[in-house]
Amino acid sequence: MFGSILKDTVLNVKGAHAAILMGFDGIPVDAYTGDSDSDIESIGMEFSVLLKEVQSAAEQLEAGAADEITIRTEKFSTILRVVSDEYFLAIAVAADGNLGKARYLLKMAVPKLLAVL
Amino acid sequence: MFGSILKDTVLNVKGAHAAILMGFDGIPVDAYTGDSDSDIESIGMEFSVLLKEVQSAAEQLEAGAADEITIRTEKFSTILRVVSDEYFLAIAVAADGNLGKARYLLKMAVPKLLAVL
Repeated sequence: MFGSILKDTVLNVKGAHAAILMGFDGIPVDAYTGDSDSDIESIGMEFSVLLKEVQSAAEQLEAGAADEITIRTEKFSTILRVVSDEYFLAIAVAADGNLGKARYLLKMAVPKLLAVL
Repeated sequence: MFGSILKDTVLNVKGAHAAILMGFDGIPVDAYTGDSDSDIESIGMEFSVLLKEVQSAAEQLEAGAADEITIRTEKFSTILRVVSDEYFLAIAVAADGNLGKARYLLKMAVPKLLAVL
């Protein structure tokens, strides 16, 4: 169920490697990696810590809730999207992939996931 | 000198509030806020800590250097761009502003800043 939402997202974004639904505690719920060798679990775990910190920084700044973070590294980009207080989505996209569409589809996936979580 | 690069960037992005050039230690070099009430210094300081952590997470993941982070909150988005080992740029853009252009102009500003830093 989660898997098919993740799979649809990855397959519809040019350059997307993998996507994961994960708890803020770093425990994965479901992931789709297709035939890529992306270590999306480690990516999610490393960045889950940051997501929490961004949320508390945003609170400090009275900027409203932080709902999305994009991290660009030399090899790929990662978009993290908050789903609820407990869960977030992460997608890894190639450096030359379609980051805009990844962001859009991740946003669209949130209500679908919330309906089944 | 830094100021005019920051000013040009802010004035050429729809919805941009302010931009700052800051050390990774949280000490500002120069900022442009125009007539906005954006507290770009606090934004830079809060997020400078995260930038360091993202860099070490990226290293852990062997993802190559982390050069850009975009943080979206309800009220505005912030793009952080690494300039060198010591400095980074931050720009705050309204929620409905042109994030893509902000990202592009920030990237373009890096070599100009490096030439005078």
